[in-house]
Amino acid sequence: MTTPAAETKQTDQLDRSRVWFESLRDRICAEIEAIEVEAPLDLFPGEPAQFDLRARERDNGMGGGVGGFLTNGRLFEKACVHTSTARGILTPEMAQTMPGAKGVEQTYASTSISLIMHPRSPKVPTVHMNTRYFHTTDYWFGGGADLTPMLNRERHQTTDDAVLFHEFMKGACDPYNPDWHAKYKAWCDEYFFLPHRKVARGVGGIFFDRHNTGDFETDFAFTQAVGEAFLSSYPKIVRRRMMEGWDAADRAEQLEVRGLYVEFNLLYDRGTTFGLRAGGNVETILSSMPPAVTWG
Amino acid sequence: MTTPAAETKQTDQLDRSRVWFESLRDRICAEIEAIEVEAPLDLFPGEPAQFDLRARERDNGMGGGVGGFLTNGRLFEKACVHTSTARGILTPEMAQTMPGAKGVEQTYASTSISLIMHPRSPKVPTVHMNTRYFHTTDYWFGGGADLTPMLNRERHQTTDDAVLFHEFMKGACDPYNPDWHAKYKAWCDEYFFLPHRKVARGVGGIFFDRHNTGDFETDFAFTQAVGEAFLSSYPKIVRRRMMEGWDAADRAEQLEVRGLYVEFNLLYDRGTTFGLRAGGNVETILSSMPPAVTWG
Repeated sequence: MTTPAAETKQTDQLDRSRVWFESLRDRICAEIEAIEVEAPLDLFPGEPAQFDLRARERDNGMGGGVGGFLTNGRLFEKACVHTSTARGILTPEMAQTMPGAKGVEQTYASTSISLIMHPRSPKVPTVHMNTRYFHTTDYWFGGGADLTPMLNRERHQTTDDAVLFHEFMKGACDPYNPDWHAKYKAWCDEYFFLPHRKVARGVGGIFFDRHNTGDFETDFAFTQAVGEAFLSSYPKIVRRRMMEGWDAADRAEQLEVRGLYVEFNLLYDRGTTFGLRAGGNVETILSSMPPAVTWG
Repeated sequence: MTTPAAETKQTDQLDRSRVWFESLRDRICAEIEAIEVEAPLDLFPGEPAQFDLRARERDNGMGGGVGGFLTNGRLFEKACVHTSTARGILTPEMAQTMPGAKGVEQTYASTSISLIMHPRSPKVPTVHMNTRYFHTTDYWFGGGADLTPMLNRERHQTTDDAVLFHEFMKGACDPYNPDWHAKYKAWCDEYFFLPHRKVARGVGGIFFDRHNTGDFETDFAFTQAVGEAFLSSYPKIVRRRMMEGWDAADRAEQLEVRGLYVEFNLLYDRGTTFGLRAGGNVETILSSMPPAVTWG
């Protein structure tokens, strides 16, 4: 049971998280659109692309969201930024695995932002970021951000891009707890791993789930810091790497490495496999698929 | 326990099945290579490709096979025909789900052929075929063949290609049991279905497993008939469709429809998902992946 006072507090937490995720979505879309305009003309001809924002509602009327789709841009071959907010009742299977779910009729609410960027240039890394708020009788945050360089010679920890990305993620964690970055970086490495190929999807970042220190304000501020770290780091990486040319061999390598992204998402990613099995919106869930992929 | 006499009989069944699958592999490879030569020059420029046969052994030394890989051909953008033979001990998890597995130390043996063809022309359907023999204390055959037209206007049961393919599969089944074709066709439709998109992967064919009438000779002959039906039908379809030209829109549609193949194999196909989780040969298992794919 949730008391009326606790329910008001939870609704407030959900609303504040939702407003944050939606404003972060708009700022990220604006930044990506700015990069579309700035990208050097000799390497990226054509018209700058903009996000097409599509509202969607769940079939059960218990929520909805906004899917931001950018396709066939100058620098971004495909970029998707989605926010989603939902209320509902946990299935018994879900209730068993969730903190704070006490009965079979346990209600939940969630709000989230999720994004993936597939640049056209093989020199510019792909990136994924997702943060979410969830409550049952308890609340927690989850999410993370991870960077995927598309050339094999760049898929290690000591490149400038990897170092910069990790520095910003560490910067988001350290003010809250000096142990979190190491913990959440290790969790990211463990999560984004393809056991069948014995390779990591990319160079990692951070990954966290069921994050609840007992103080919502701290946890919310930390989640905001992760979003800010993404917004401060990835565009910086894109802007310096977009000045570099590439050749056909680089492009071929990028299309092959994208296969790892497909394999990971369809074989292992819990959000993707669970979402599809649970009847989620296919267009949104599979917007993570790269625009073009090859398998040798 | 398996008596020495029963063991000799099983070894004989395994050997005869293996020899059949290997000879079928060689005949299929020869037919595909012949089509590579015949394909009209105006539509399919370049040099005819041949299969590269690569022997491989399992890490545990309990088996191996031959992977036949044809890449970047004139008509066939990618074609793979594999045979594999193995002996081993079932894991307790596998033993629980297998007929005739009586104890935790249950040995098994298997031999199989598996193939997939990805033509360059969007007018020529993709195809998959697999048949296998398996024994524990009991034996059975499994497998099937299914056709996947790559243009949405052809992805239904009444096209000439679908009708011809089903006729040949029916022809393989009917001499053995007039009920089998309907049963195995329905099983195929049920198996090769993508619930998240509510679409079939293709137009189906037949699918069967744990096929054991109690008479090995009959079951072996039926499995051979399925292989012959494949070899008599698919090249016929290819040879008539390879005369048709296509445009950029057809090619774009083909690359999108190939995404269904990727999604099915990585999300649902038991051979793929089980094989990858069990540490199977990645190159062989993922040879089913299309050579180039797009997601819109």
